[in-house]
Amino acid sequence: MIKAGIIGATGYAGGELVRLLLGHKDVEIKWYGSRSYIDKKYSDVYQNMFQIVDDRCMDDNMEELAGQVDVIFTATPQGFCAGLVTEEILSKVKIIDLSADFRIKDVDIYEEWYKIEHKSPEFIGEAVYGLCEINREQVRGARLIANPGCYPTCSTLSVYPLLKEGLIDPNTIIIDAKSGTSGAGRGAKVDNLYCEVNENIKAYGVASHRHTPEIEEQLGYAAGQEIRLNFTPHLVPMNRGILITAYASLKREVSYEEVKAVYDKYYEKEQFVRVLEKDVCPQTKWVEGSNYVDVNFKIDPRTKRIIMMGAMDNLVKGAAGQAVQNMNLIFGLPENEGLMQVPMFP
Amino acid sequence: MIKAGIIGATGYAGGELVRLLLGHKDVEIKWYGSRSYIDKKYSDVYQNMFQIVDDRCMDDNMEELAGQVDVIFTATPQGFCAGLVTEEILSKVKIIDLSADFRIKDVDIYEEWYKIEHKSPEFIGEAVYGLCEINREQVRGARLIANPGCYPTCSTLSVYPLLKEGLIDPNTIIIDAKSGTSGAGRGAKVDNLYCEVNENIKAYGVASHRHTPEIEEQLGYAAGQEIRLNFTPHLVPMNRGILITAYASLKREVSYEEVKAVYDKYYEKEQFVRVLEKDVCPQTKWVEGSNYVDVNFKIDPRTKRIIMMGAMDNLVKGAAGQAVQNMNLIFGLPENEGLMQVPMFP
Amino acid sequence: MIKAGIIGATGYAGGELVRLLLGHKDVEIKWYGSRSYIDKKYSDVYQNMFQIVDDRCMDDNMEELAGQVDVIFTATPQGFCAGLVTEEILSKVKIIDLSADFRIKDVDIYEEWYKIEHKSPEFIGEAVYGLCEINREQVRGARLIANPGCYPTCSTLSVYPLLKEGLIDPNTIIIDAKSGTSGAGRGAKVDNLYCEVNENIKAYGVASHRHTPEIEEQLGYAAGQEIRLNFTPHLVPMNRGILITAYASLKREVSYEEVKAVYDKYYEKEQFVRVLEKDVCPQTKWVEGSNYVDVNFKIDPRTKRIIMMGAMDNLVKGAAGQAVQNMNLIFGLPENEGLMQVPMFP
Amino acid sequence: MIKAGIIGATGYAGGELVRLLLGHKDVEIKWYGSRSYIDKKYSDVYQNMFQIVDDRCMDDNMEELAGQVDVIFTATPQGFCAGLVTEEILSKVKIIDLSADFRIKDVDIYEEWYKIEHKSPEFIGEAVYGLCEINREQVRGARLIANPGCYPTCSTLSVYPLLKEGLIDPNTIIIDAKSGTSGAGRGAKVDNLYCEVNENIKAYGVASHRHTPEIEEQLGYAAGQEIRLNFTPHLVPMNRGILITAYASLKREVSYEEVKAVYDKYYEKEQFVRVLEKDVCPQTKWVEGSNYVDVNFKIDPRTKRIIMMGAMDNLVKGAAGQAVQNMNLIFGLPENEGLMQVPMFP
Repeated sequence: MIKAGIIGATGYAGGELVRLLLGHKDVEIKWYGSRSYIDKKYSDVYQNMFQIVDDRCMDDNMEELAGQVDVIFTATPQGFCAGLVTEEILSKVKIIDLSADFRIKDVDIYEEWYKIEHKSPEFIGEAVYGLCEINREQVRGARLIANPGCYPTCSTLSVYPLLKEGLIDPNTIIIDAKSGTSGAGRGAKVDNLYCEVNENIKAYGVASHRHTPEIEEQLGYAAGQEIRLNFTPHLVPMNRGILITAYASLKREVSYEEVKAVYDKYYEKEQFVRVLEKDVCPQTKWVEGSNYVDVNFKIDPRTKRIIMMGAMDNLVKGAAGQAVQNMNLIFGLPENEGLMQVPMFP
Repeated sequence: MIKAGIIGATGYAGGELVRLLLGHKDVEIKWYGSRSYIDKKYSDVYQNMFQIVDDRCMDDNMEELAGQVDVIFTATPQGFCAGLVTEEILSKVKIIDLSADFRIKDVDIYEEWYKIEHKSPEFIGEAVYGLCEINREQVRGARLIANPGCYPTCSTLSVYPLLKEGLIDPNTIIIDAKSGTSGAGRGAKVDNLYCEVNENIKAYGVASHRHTPEIEEQLGYAAGQEIRLNFTPHLVPMNRGILITAYASLKREVSYEEVKAVYDKYYEKEQFVRVLEKDVCPQTKWVEGSNYVDVNFKIDPRTKRIIMMGAMDNLVKGAAGQAVQNMNLIFGLPENEGLMQVPMFP
Repeated sequence: MIKAGIIGATGYAGGELVRLLLGHKDVEIKWYGSRSYIDKKYSDVYQNMFQIVDDRCMDDNMEELAGQVDVIFTATPQGFCAGLVTEEILSKVKIIDLSADFRIKDVDIYEEWYKIEHKSPEFIGEAVYGLCEINREQVRGARLIANPGCYPTCSTLSVYPLLKEGLIDPNTIIIDAKSGTSGAGRGAKVDNLYCEVNENIKAYGVASHRHTPEIEEQLGYAAGQEIRLNFTPHLVPMNRGILITAYASLKREVSYEEVKAVYDKYYEKEQFVRVLEKDVCPQTKWVEGSNYVDVNFKIDPRTKRIIMMGAMDNLVKGAAGQAVQNMNLIFGLPENEGLMQVPMFP
Repeated sequence: MIKAGIIGATGYAGGELVRLLLGHKDVEIKWYGSRSYIDKKYSDVYQNMFQIVDDRCMDDNMEELAGQVDVIFTATPQGFCAGLVTEEILSKVKIIDLSADFRIKDVDIYEEWYKIEHKSPEFIGEAVYGLCEINREQVRGARLIANPGCYPTCSTLSVYPLLKEGLIDPNTIIIDAKSGTSGAGRGAKVDNLYCEVNENIKAYGVASHRHTPEIEEQLGYAAGQEIRLNFTPHLVPMNRGILITAYASLKREVSYEEVKAVYDKYYEKEQFVRVLEKDVCPQTKWVEGSNYVDVNFKIDPRTKRIIMMGAMDNLVKGAAGQAVQNMNLIFGLPENEGLMQVPMFP
């Protein structure tokens, strides 16, 4: 039985982690950390957990926790994990960090986009970017996982094969992303009130969203060169789900079959990436509550561009589900253990 | 391994049954019946099932099916199951009927409210009303289950203990119910279009909804007398969930503790009925995707009435989940097998 | 040209008042009061007003304002208006108070339900309860209007005729109400976040909501006796709209025609109350953005009860629209001036 | 008083036209045409119109109508208007066609994208594309208006100034559009059911949507050259609103001020196009129910691209409102007559 501690258990990603780990037969949650709700019953914070998790929330103490569990999930704001992780802690426990602290290899880029000083740059090199479909082998041996951001997960998986196979021009990538509101967190802000979000859609963080350098770095590995791209997220009136619509110029004429074969090459054996059938556009509702990413594409011969699409649940594959997937790999469990939820529809 | 066939697998309740049975370790679905989508891939009807269920839909043939499976679920319109069930079929297979055909013992009442002739009244007596919390023992031995309606399940469980213990006046019951739109089914009707339902709420079937006699019959058993009550359903802009708010006059002065003790007496050992803590009102979101019913109450000393509340997922405890619960009891499995989903929030 | 000042212009009701008054040909808004956004451009608080209202928000100074305008609307929290109103102010300006401060004639009841001391009980007697359809004549001569609460407006108008005509038993009234989320205001609270409200419904304030005594007082006048009733509001995932479903026992057998005639007697000449046709249930979407209240009823001969229904836009007839209607009466304008908006659908 | 007839009055665009014309002081609606609801009361089709429009729906007879009114609005499926318009009709009455029949000058392109034969190509040359901000003068003298499509209106207005001024490369334009569900019409289709659209987002018509050639033609005029661009619409769970996010490569380095000056040059005097302040992203909710288009832009120096954004109400500026604006111009009325609705928020 793997003993797990969650720091930041009362945010939406933390809550989803609890939901998934409760259904995982090899894991026992030992610690519900929450700075905001110390000593409060977890089920008072999330009433869906009534009679399921009646433990009390604990202070966010990583050092104390390190001695008691096998794995710590940090579902915390930027800077938290980097501020506390030490060699001693890492020698005792695996850390899966759901924040951005260890996702970006170039500390200057991190500090520029996140506007905070990185407190433990010495671990950036060791941290493994936990996009399992791409970095599976490194994940298995990792002590510290940088769990990918929601937008970067969906964007990278949708675009990666074509870039890796050299079918698209790396300088022409535009990613237009749409997300449900749970991505904005559970903080009490006017902008996230029901009446402000409902019946509304807007772009935000245009040309400045922090997930941009993360996507650029990952896609840069695929392209074998530095990439600058446009990434524009939008807030959509729904709880869960991310849809990305990506555009790039094709380097040469391609057929549907050729492109399909490329996606299949990378994803045919992947359980959580589904390449949809011809002309079927991904929909976020079809993956709700599950760890799937649905991808597809459409060639536009008129403009010599290709449109790549991906849909996933931002709280599952975009956060908690991927964290569990990483945990499974690290501990040598079947990669899909606890992640076999069939998407819920409607 | 229990072999299951689903007739009406492409409605919303049928789809939910598929989702639940896929996660049930002792069941194998052998037949996806659908009058509307014969020969179509199931995952073309419900794209969330892509690469999960790629079987083709079959004609709704109960006789053929009876020889091939251990249990048949009929998630079909009223009249279908009653029109096909025979002694021969029942001698081969268990039937769990999600329609209203066998819920009402008095065939005249059925025919009056449903405006159709009952085609097999001879089986009404044998059919067990599958509200497991109340009829558990009869369910175990049943061949034919009348799976309760969504509103009746939530209404009955919320009101039953107080009526059974004689705390409320059976002639004063008013049930005001609110349901998500999946309860209206997947038929293409203008009234159920997004733009007609969204940002809107209305009552429907006022003083005439077909679930009325079903609730009256079940609560009548608890009261030990015939009951006439008001039941008013409302359509709410959400996919899933039923909330019922029921009112009744108290027969005498009662304390919170006394009423709480009554609810606990009936539900303390029930896994799927959660009696919430004092002053916590049930919310449909807290039970989404799960088989739970959350109930609570509030005494109003000013009016000498009590307000009883219940929330559940109409497609799970109100349809498919309860059907699985019935199946578990019939086949001697743990009652919660395949039904341990933690509610999904948000 | 009537000069108007709004105190509390940046709440949802205040914003709606601005929208309506901008379309009113005889009114000029001179003062956008807002404690929270002093000196901020109004259109920065409500971007829909960009290039329409670029005035800056002012401090909430009622005394200063009294000398500059003809009418003050206070769309403020309970206690604000009562804390500032004076004889001197009332001698200069008409006040239409959208809070509860002057709605309840018995100051003890006010203080008990609102848990605050009333600072100017001497004006309670003078204040006119501004439900125009019922108190039209008194409104015309008023200096101080207690603009009715949203739930009380819809509840009273739906039930009033039957009570006044003695058709229903005043001791049996139960009002089950459903409201959109704008009724909860624009304050930043976790409970009102998009992800908490969306796909969810709950009751709140059960047997304790502050609008209860207001409804009881108004219906008490109709009945000619004190009334105790049950009032249960619910939060619905939509921005606007209130639906009430009210139940009462009929004192004697009545026909549809007889009850219809009673409603017509009271509302046939009322522009803003629409008695719908037989069997048509009111829907909140049909009155969105307008000052209409749609009412209807259904007799249940089985239970000898009648179900009364009403739908309106909580921000218009339930707040700002009714305030404008009151203003029109006070200043001798046509009652519907500025209130002829056709409901927006979808 | 202008006498107006509406053919197709019972679709969503037709309904919005009714709402707007009812508030227009110089117009009287004489004909509510509806193929589907002949002889039915209009208010039975749209209950929001109860006691407002109780006229009966008429057959869609353009010839009969031409003799009775001054202007005919056709809010009908493609092919309808082209199939009926004649010189005789046009000599009697102005026609404002909300369908695509006369929007595209090249009949081959029309027939290729719409897959129908054009029945009256002889009027294509005469028809004026009614995007008032750009073609104001031609509109004034027109007999036949091709009222622009919803997506083309928002896309063209957002991109036009930069293309006209030569700041962006016409070969690099990508338009990612998001629309509320009213754009899909009131037809009863499973895809548009509440439960299918709610909590969901998807792209549709990828690289094949019929509005593509219309946008290309209009932007081609601005660029002074043929254009091929990518246009991808998405279905968003909301009733109303279109947001477009457009991308293009800048031809040279530009400053915020320079681009702002370009937008102001074209729109400063336009009442219905609002160029938002720096860094404020358009939101559909801020224009709901109004004829405004809110536009803004963001320069991304990293990629040398510019992101152009536009938001409007698809049923108003994207359909009925623009039709009224065209009518005002044709009949010499103030352009904003009947179109001064303040956007409704929330």
